[in-house]
Amino acid sequence: MKPYREMSKDELAQQKAELTKQFEDAKAMGLKLDMSRGKPTSAQLDMTMGLMDVLNSDSDMMSMDGVDTRNYGLMDGIIEAKHLMADVMSVPAENVIVYGNSSLSIMYDSISRSMTHGVMGSTPWCKLDQVKFLCPVPGYDRHFAITEHFGIEMILIPMTPEGPDMDLVEKYVNEDPAVKGIWCVPKYSNPQGISYSDETVRRFAALKPAAKDFRIYWDNAYAIHHLYEDKQDQILEILSECEKAGNPDMVYEFCSTSKITFSGSGMAAMASSPANLADVKKALTLQTIGHDKVNQLRHTRYFKNVEGMMTHMKKHADILRPKFEAVLSVLDKELGGLGIGEWTRPLGGYFISFDAMEGCAKAIVGKCKEAGVVLTGAGATFPYGKDPKDSNIRIAPTFPTSEDMAKATDIFVLCVKLVSVEKLLQA
Amino acid sequence: MKPYREMSKDELAQQKAELTKQFEDAKAMGLKLDMSRGKPTSAQLDMTMGLMDVLNSDSDMMSMDGVDTRNYGLMDGIIEAKHLMADVMSVPAENVIVYGNSSLSIMYDSISRSMTHGVMGSTPWCKLDQVKFLCPVPGYDRHFAITEHFGIEMILIPMTPEGPDMDLVEKYVNEDPAVKGIWCVPKYSNPQGISYSDETVRRFAALKPAAKDFRIYWDNAYAIHHLYEDKQDQILEILSECEKAGNPDMVYEFCSTSKITFSGSGMAAMASSPANLADVKKALTLQTIGHDKVNQLRHTRYFKNVEGMMTHMKKHADILRPKFEAVLSVLDKELGGLGIGEWTRPLGGYFISFDAMEGCAKAIVGKCKEAGVVLTGAGATFPYGKDPKDSNIRIAPTFPTSEDMAKATDIFVLCVKLVSVEKLLQA
Repeated sequence: MKPYREMSKDELAQQKAELTKQFEDAKAMGLKLDMSRGKPTSAQLDMTMGLMDVLNSDSDMMSMDGVDTRNYGLMDGIIEAKHLMADVMSVPAENVIVYGNSSLSIMYDSISRSMTHGVMGSTPWCKLDQVKFLCPVPGYDRHFAITEHFGIEMILIPMTPEGPDMDLVEKYVNEDPAVKGIWCVPKYSNPQGISYSDETVRRFAALKPAAKDFRIYWDNAYAIHHLYEDKQDQILEILSECEKAGNPDMVYEFCSTSKITFSGSGMAAMASSPANLADVKKALTLQTIGHDKVNQLRHTRYFKNVEGMMTHMKKHADILRPKFEAVLSVLDKELGGLGIGEWTRPLGGYFISFDAMEGCAKAIVGKCKEAGVVLTGAGATFPYGKDPKDSNIRIAPTFPTSEDMAKATDIFVLCVKLVSVEKLLQA
Repeated sequence: MKPYREMSKDELAQQKAELTKQFEDAKAMGLKLDMSRGKPTSAQLDMTMGLMDVLNSDSDMMSMDGVDTRNYGLMDGIIEAKHLMADVMSVPAENVIVYGNSSLSIMYDSISRSMTHGVMGSTPWCKLDQVKFLCPVPGYDRHFAITEHFGIEMILIPMTPEGPDMDLVEKYVNEDPAVKGIWCVPKYSNPQGISYSDETVRRFAALKPAAKDFRIYWDNAYAIHHLYEDKQDQILEILSECEKAGNPDMVYEFCSTSKITFSGSGMAAMASSPANLADVKKALTLQTIGHDKVNQLRHTRYFKNVEGMMTHMKKHADILRPKFEAVLSVLDKELGGLGIGEWTRPLGGYFISFDAMEGCAKAIVGKCKEAGVVLTGAGATFPYGKDPKDSNIRIAPTFPTSEDMAKATDIFVLCVKLVSVEKLLQA
C-alpha cells in the first residue's frame, strides 16, 4: 500500500470507510487487553520461586563477614549484597549503598533530601526561588512525577538515537545555576530502548555545571535486561568517566532487582562517589537502622554472583523476546511504508516507543480503549503529562502473552490507521 | 547501710577508699560488657527462624484477596497484613498502611513530607520561620535526632508516672501555633517503661491545637511487648479517643514487628484517619510502587493472627524477664535506701531508666567504660544529647545474657556509688 500522505482525498475516504468497518468488527469482539503495564509476567516470577527455598529454619543467617542479618544495623547493606549490586552497575563495591526494595524510593529520597538539606552543604533547594531539572523526552513518567511533586521546573530535552540532545544539555547545565539535575535512563531507556553512546556518556562526564549541586540521576534500571544474546547494548561506566573528567561527585546512580527477581521484594542500590555517599549517610542514619538484610542474604545466596544473575536474565529474555517480536512483526507488516508512524526496535528493556503523526496519540489511545485495548495514557512519557506534539505512545509488551500482544497490536495498528486517515482528511 | 547524704565527710571518705579499691579490682577483671543496645538477643531471633520456612518454591504467593505478592503494586499493603498490624494497634484495618521494614523511616518520612509539603494542605514547614516539637524526656534519641536534623526546635516536657506533663503539653499545643508535633512512646516508654494513663490519653485527645497541622507522633513501639503474663499495662486507643473528642486527624500512629520477628526484616505500619492517610498516599504513590508484599505474606502466614503473635511474644518475655530481673535485683540490693539513685520497674518494653544524683550521669557512664561496661551515652535520652540535670541513664538489658547483665550491673552500681560519694565529698 502507498504512503497515506500520497493518497488522494477519495482514496483516504475509501480507506476510512474500510477501517471504520474493521474497527466496528473489532469492537464487537469485546476484547480486554492491556499493553500499558511495564511489569514482569507471571512466568518470569515463577522462574524465581527458587528464591523462596534459599533460606529455611536451619540456615546460617550470618553474612560473609559475620553480621547477623536478622538483627538491627548495617545501614548500607551486607558486604556480599554490595558486591553483587556493584557488579550489576560495574562499579566498585565501596561506591554502593544497598537499600530496600525500591530504587524509585531512593530517587524520591535523593530529591527530598536535596530539598530540605541541599547537596554536600549547598543551600537546601526549598530555600531557592527556582530549581530546574532537565527531562529527556520521551521518558519515564514516575521520574517526572517526583520532580513535579517537589515543584521543580522541568525542561524538555529531546532524545536522539545516541541519547539526550547533548548540545542542549550542555547549554542548560553549564549556563544555568538553577539546573540541579537531569533524569537519565542510560541503557534501554524507558520508553524508547535507546542506549547512550560512548560519546554521549563522555559529554555527560565532561559537563561543567553552573550549579555545584548539580547531579546526574542515572537510573540504570535495565543494566542487564537484554533481549538477545548476540545483540546487546553496552554503555560506558559513568562514575569512572566522571572521575576521569574531574567531576567525581556529579552522579547518583540507581538500580534494583525489581525486574530480576520479584518486583516488590527485591533489593535496590545507589552508587556514587565517597563524598556523595557520606552526604547521603548523614541523613540515612536517621532514617533507618538498616534495610532488609535477610532479603539481601537471600538474593546473594540465590544468585551467588552477577554471572548467576546474567544466566537467570537469559531465561527472562526467552520469555520476553517473543512478545517484543510479536508486536514488531505486526507493526512492520501493517504500518511499514505507510508513513503514519515510527517505532523503536530495542535490544533490551521493557518498552517499545511509537511515534504517531503529530496530534494523533491521544486519539489513538482513545480508539484503542473503545476497542478494549488499554495503552499507557498519551502524554505520560512527558513532564506534566503533556506531549507537545501529541505523538508518543509507550507500548509495554511484557505482561500479556505473546498471542494477546499480537491481538492487541492488531487493534493498535488499526486505530493508528483510522486516526491517521481522519487526521489527513481534516488537513 | 544508711543513706549517703546522711554520712559524715569521714564516713564518705572511708566509703570512697573502699569503693575505689573495689573499682580497681573490677577494672583488673578486664570485662567487656554492653548494656547500651536496645536490640533483641540471638535467642529471640532463633525462636523466629520458622518464619524462614513459611514460603518455599511450591507456595501459593497470592494474598487472601488474590493479589500476586511477587509483582508490583498495592502501595498500602496486602489485606491480611493490614488486619494483623491493625490488630496490634487495636484499630480498624482501613486506618492502616503497611510499609517496609522500619517504623523509624515512616516517622522520618512523615516529618520530611511535612517539611516539603505541609500537612493536609498547610504551609510546608520549610517555609515557616519556626517549627517546634514537644519532646517528653527522658525519651528516644532517634526521635530527637530526626527533629534536630530538620532544624525543628525541641521543647522539653518532663515525664511523670502517668506520661508527659499534660499541663505543659496543653499550654504549648493550645497556645503556640509553631508547635507542630509531639513525640510519644505511649506504652512501655523508652527509656522509662511508663505507660500513659487513661487520663493522659484523654487529655491528648482533647487538645485544641493552635496549629491546624499539629500531629501527635504516637510511636506504639512496644504495643505487645509485655514482660509478664499477670501484670500488663494497657493504654487507651488513641485514634478512637481523638475521634470522640472531635480531633479525628490529630494522630499519626506507628508500629513495627522489629522486636517481634527479625529487627531489620519485619514490617512496619502507620495508622491514622482516612483524611491523613489520603494525604500521606499523595506522596507515597510517587515514592514507591509498593513495599515488600512477599514479606508481608510471610509474616501473616507465620502468625495467622494477632493471637499467634501474642503467643510468640510470651516466649520473648520468658527470655527477657530474667534479664530485667537480674538488673533490678542488683539495683535493689546494692542501691536500695542509699538515696543516690532511682530506677523504674517496667512491665514491658526494652529499657530500665536510672536517675542518678544530679550532675553524676556522665561521670558514671565514664567510670563504667573504664571498667569495661558500655552504657548508652549520658544525655542520649534528651534532645541535643543534653540532659540538663546530667542525671538520666538508660539501661538496655535485652541483648547480653542474664549472667552478663548481673555482672554489668554490679559494675554499674559500684560506679554509681563511687561517683555519688565523690560528688557528696565535693559538696
